[in-house]
Amino acid sequence: MAIGITMGASGVGPESLLRVFELGVLNRPWLAFGDLAVLAFAKEKLGLNTPVCTISLGDPLQNGTLNLVDLGLLQCSDIRPGEISKESGYAAVKYVEAATQAALEGKIDAVVTLPVNKEASRMTFPEFQGHTELIADMCGVEDYTMMLATPDLVATHVSTHVSLREAVDRVKTGRILTVICLTHEVLQRIRPRARIAVAGLNPHAGEHGAFGREEIEEIRPAVEAALADGIDVHGPLPPDTLFMQAVGGAYDAIVCMYHDQGHIPLKMRSFHEGVNVTVGLPIIRTSVDHGTAFDIAYQGTASTGNLVRAFELAAAMAEEK
Amino acid sequence: MAIGITMGASGVGPESLLRVFELGVLNRPWLAFGDLAVLAFAKEKLGLNTPVCTISLGDPLQNGTLNLVDLGLLQCSDIRPGEISKESGYAAVKYVEAATQAALEGKIDAVVTLPVNKEASRMTFPEFQGHTELIADMCGVEDYTMMLATPDLVATHVSTHVSLREAVDRVKTGRILTVICLTHEVLQRIRPRARIAVAGLNPHAGEHGAFGREEIEEIRPAVEAALADGIDVHGPLPPDTLFMQAVGGAYDAIVCMYHDQGHIPLKMRSFHEGVNVTVGLPIIRTSVDHGTAFDIAYQGTASTGNLVRAFELAAAMAEEK
Repeated sequence: MAIGITMGASGVGPESLLRVFELGVLNRPWLAFGDLAVLAFAKEKLGLNTPVCTISLGDPLQNGTLNLVDLGLLQCSDIRPGEISKESGYAAVKYVEAATQAALEGKIDAVVTLPVNKEASRMTFPEFQGHTELIADMCGVEDYTMMLATPDLVATHVSTHVSLREAVDRVKTGRILTVICLTHEVLQRIRPRARIAVAGLNPHAGEHGAFGREEIEEIRPAVEAALADGIDVHGPLPPDTLFMQAVGGAYDAIVCMYHDQGHIPLKMRSFHEGVNVTVGLPIIRTSVDHGTAFDIAYQGTASTGNLVRAFELAAAMAEEK
Repeated sequence: MAIGITMGASGVGPESLLRVFELGVLNRPWLAFGDLAVLAFAKEKLGLNTPVCTISLGDPLQNGTLNLVDLGLLQCSDIRPGEISKESGYAAVKYVEAATQAALEGKIDAVVTLPVNKEASRMTFPEFQGHTELIADMCGVEDYTMMLATPDLVATHVSTHVSLREAVDRVKTGRILTVICLTHEVLQRIRPRARIAVAGLNPHAGEHGAFGREEIEEIRPAVEAALADGIDVHGPLPPDTLFMQAVGGAYDAIVCMYHDQGHIPLKMRSFHEGVNVTVGLPIIRTSVDHGTAFDIAYQGTASTGNLVRAFELAAAMAEEK
């Protein structure tokens, strides 16, 4: 079986795919979901002769060539590198849908996604929040969380792409307990015996209610419920020293109360090694932890480290499954 | 002239003072504000013979001895290492008041504070928010900001010790502009030609309003007003990549929208080198960037690195002034 990679169109996705093929760094069978015209355009732009073959889902993969499920949505003339375009935004979403459907039907082992430009996709799909939400919706799943994984620390999140004000509103016992349980489950698979900590929401975890009562009223009850379920979890802990302690070896995973609580420290520490995993889905899905990087698109300078890591983690999870 | 250091009572403050005296690492004249009985207790606990003399403000400092302004508030029997005590919390506040008053009267060059336990101090002063707020109040100043300084990056904060929900409410153009200006002023004194960035509040800086409009309605107008004032400032920028970019050399200072936005990444990067500076006061005041550390109090194991850094920065600011 194989792992599917979705490619995007106007950003650094297509060139990342071509590059990892040329470098031969992906150590398992894989196939791309995208457009032949986009790859042809990227090859010309970057002066590459990468062999590409189009296949139908279920066909055996060809050796020595980049296998592509060609959705035939874009022409070369549609592609404007580094620009927000309705056509590209539409196509990028369709690649993700196709790969997710293939995974749901058991035709691929896992989905690895390259970035999608949300603004471009919203030109066709106004409600589009991100591919994570799209994939979860296709899977019929409501309880999931984004895990940001780096070599020495992972963070899961009670909320992600919502305003900070809404993130505060979402700090509720039920949701926190769900995220603790999802974190525990996925870690059992990829890092057994991982020590999980739960961050507070407020500075100094609220200092016993002096500034903010979410630790007392929402977070601690979730931690206690998880402990009662047999999960080894600690918290809520003061956020500004927790990450430092974790990096020092005290914890392997941190349940974060909002997007930037986890993303700021982990990206600062391991920018080129960060991988997103959507935890709680019936399929395996990982993603690079960077955006479309329109400013350097089609210049051949984008780092492929994130893609390699995302692929390797998806492969490891598929193997374990 | 000399620099005053306030010592606290039940935490790691007293031993930090004794240790830096024994090590001889503070390269300028200094005197402590505290209690002789506390130092005597700490000396016995730690098996030290550190010479201590008590002086009155304005007296010349004695050589070869730790100079102490003895407030005479605590007896040895009052001191319970690592415990929250009303007596200690009261005394710790009084040490800060005495040093601040001395600085306001021009009798010392600067104040360096060791930690105060807020809960202990609140047993006498229910409204006590922290020594920073106390000092600002004594100085009659409303517009100030906490700067966390590490060797390669500084962060200032629109708000500090308030709940995250209230922090969101405080993201207002006027306050942000004040903090940008304060940041610019202090950097002119300690790091000329520093490049200042302003962080967004929401994930990805709100993605053009998709999740959160504070960047558009509050932060950008402040940045534009600062630019119009001739300050070289950039933003609002996506928080989760900004710190990484700054550490990579793009910026020297980041104006943060809330306490943990700056404290999580800077503490992770430079825990033992972090110094707090209260910016906007008529006096010079720095502080160690850690708490009372009750768990290791009076054991002689506390790191003195933060105190040395806080002292050196206060000395450098006093020199420049």
